Amino acid sequence: MLKVRAAVQKLQTYHPPLAGRQGLRLDFNENTVGCSPRVLARMRALDTETLARYPDREPVEHEVAGFLGLDATQLLLTNGVDEAIHLLCSTYLEAGDEAVIVMPTFAMYSIFAQAAAAKVVEVQSGPDFAFPLEALLTRISPRTRFIAIANPNNPTGAAVSEEILLRIADAAPQAAVLVDEAYFEFHGETLLARRERPSNLFVARTFSKAYGLAGLRIGVLVGDPRQMAMVRRVASPYNVNAVALAILPEALQDVAYVEHYAAEMRRNRRLLEQELSGLGLHYWPSRGNFVLVRIGPLHNDFVHSLRDRGILVRDRDSDPGCEGCVRLTVGSDQQMRTLITTLRSIVEELALRREVQA
Amino acid sequence: MLKVRAAVQKLQTYHPPLAGRQGLRLDFNENTVGCSPRVLARMRALDTETLARYPDREPVEHEVAGFLGLDATQLLLTNGVDEAIHLLCSTYLEAGDEAVIVMPTFAMYSIFAQAAAAKVVEVQSGPDFAFPLEALLTRISPRTRFIAIANPNNPTGAAVSEEILLRIADAAPQAAVLVDEAYFEFHGETLLARRERPSNLFVARTFSKAYGLAGLRIGVLVGDPRQMAMVRRVASPYNVNAVALAILPEALQDVAYVEHYAAEMRRNRRLLEQELSGLGLHYWPSRGNFVLVRIGPLHNDFVHSLRDRGILVRDRDSDPGCEGCVRLTVGSDQQMRTLITTLRSIVEELALRREVQA
Repeated sequence: MLKVRAAVQKLQTYHPPLAGRQGLRLDFNENTVGCSPRVLARMRALDTETLARYPDREPVEHEVAGFLGLDATQLLLTNGVDEAIHLLCSTYLEAGDEAVIVMPTFAMYSIFAQAAAAKVVEVQSGPDFAFPLEALLTRISPRTRFIAIANPNNPTGAAVSEEILLRIADAAPQAAVLVDEAYFEFHGETLLARRERPSNLFVARTFSKAYGLAGLRIGVLVGDPRQMAMVRRVASPYNVNAVALAILPEALQDVAYVEHYAAEMRRNRRLLEQELSGLGLHYWPSRGNFVLVRIGPLHNDFVHSLRDRGILVRDRDSDPGCEGCVRLTVGSDQQMRTLITTLRSIVEELALRREVQA
Repeated sequence: MLKVRAAVQKLQTYHPPLAGRQGLRLDFNENTVGCSPRVLARMRALDTETLARYPDREPVEHEVAGFLGLDATQLLLTNGVDEAIHLLCSTYLEAGDEAVIVMPTFAMYSIFAQAAAAKVVEVQSGPDFAFPLEALLTRISPRTRFIAIANPNNPTGAAVSEEILLRIADAAPQAAVLVDEAYFEFHGETLLARRERPSNLFVARTFSKAYGLAGLRIGVLVGDPRQMAMVRRVASPYNVNAVALAILPEALQDVAYVEHYAAEMRRNRRLLEQELSGLGLHYWPSRGNFVLVRIGPLHNDFVHSLRDRGILVRDRDSDPGCEGCVRLTVGSDQQMRTLITTLRSIVEELALRREVQA
């Protein structure tokens, strides 16, 4: 029988719980309001010509570069941030190399690093998910060729300073250091604001979150032009679909839409955090469009009770350091009122307040 | 400075000539008429919800499986056939393994095999692009882990029999054998019609050609369920975008559209071949929606003359064995009339008839 590579033999399939997502979607950190109406109108105006032609990424990369204040040689549009991670692993990781990842975090860093036959070095976050800088620095070796840091981090919502990120890039010049800014719009700080970045530092952005376009699969990978020329070699020229490319300029132009949406999310994140406090639940202050909350042993009942009432949230109990934790995506004013009312009744029903205090 | 993997260092960027494609598109073997109107209508009816959610491949995979008479465990939807090739290389090729490829052929087999640090073993086709079965069999070694065959082949249009394909799969049980049926609808023969296939054989299909959906990036990879479970491990769960997934069932249901279009292409392929004969140009009988024709030393002038008259075709001079060759995509009745009129005048102008006869 045909044998797969040893690295693939050891790999687990990542199978997110997408089936039967009926209800209020507070489980995947998606935009729950919908993209800019201008973007939808643009999509609806597309003709068969756009669908029939192979997509041409380059002209749109120039527009994205202009929007980000970069040169087009510094970036690559990708099929979501997932592909950006995959491409970095394919470009830099040889079998036996090491990939350093701060835990808990987004699952795909580890999956693509393992698929590249690298050894994944997991560095556990400190108490309350404090960034484990010293631990991370001690785990850097000459074989460290990839370091991935989500900023803000998912599922914790914790952010790390620019100073720390630059220190890591400086400590590991032999490694591609990816700073994944998927949740940038809810945080406000970005390495792209710097005029210069170390040549081994990469920044990823996405249109899946604040822009409400997770379905279209559009990510952006930014890096040193010489490095990006290498990354481009392992990508298909047709990696990003034509609908995504056609609507992207419209999405970039409707700045007011994204700013308004991000402001609403930041406001409602504070509202949700205050409510969780009031309910006696332990949560971690977040810089993303989600909040991680410790429910304790009843996390499963909590998630199912919410689901029974039409609200989907994500159990993160199996993430290292997240025992008993559930992640709640922040939504619109109306959606947060629904969530809060439901939370109050479930906390009462499951006697969670006592649970947590016990 | 950050170093890339040795395999990437040696890789060439594949940069298809997508810029400034104004005119009649007979250069990328795309559908030049447009997809089914039902597909366009379905796309225009999509709402922001579809765009905002992460795409869910599984339900659509069940529909595609039903359409192909397969079980969903036998297939994976991919971001175009490009991703199918990439995934097979990532699943089976270790550094130093060998990938056997029949030349000339589609460029991406070699690119992704090289990106996986495999050694590419090129087997040149025989006279008039006859399939080099004996040569190929002698090049199979214990390190052969990937064999890619486009059937019909691109850019030659040559087809290979099921018997030969099965013999290759049988001769290399240690290798993943990919039969790329991207042009199936214009050929009519498929390995998917067999009730059983060897467990190391994979078949790729695409919606980029006959279905007119190259922009949406939808491929299908079919294989043994145990192998497909492995291939799925190295893919992102969100590899295919939500617009593609939403319109695909509609595309599958409009059988009449694709059958009508494919019949028109087969008819016009014959028409074009007859015309090329009449013009005294050497061409190779094709089973795809394109015809490869030998223009000779003036191939460049030929391509530019056509472009000046608003018709885009593809120079294939640099493909091994295709010196002086140009590939013409077949189009609609009206488009073929335009092409033929223009061909006549250019053949006259460049005195190509004499060129070829000389």
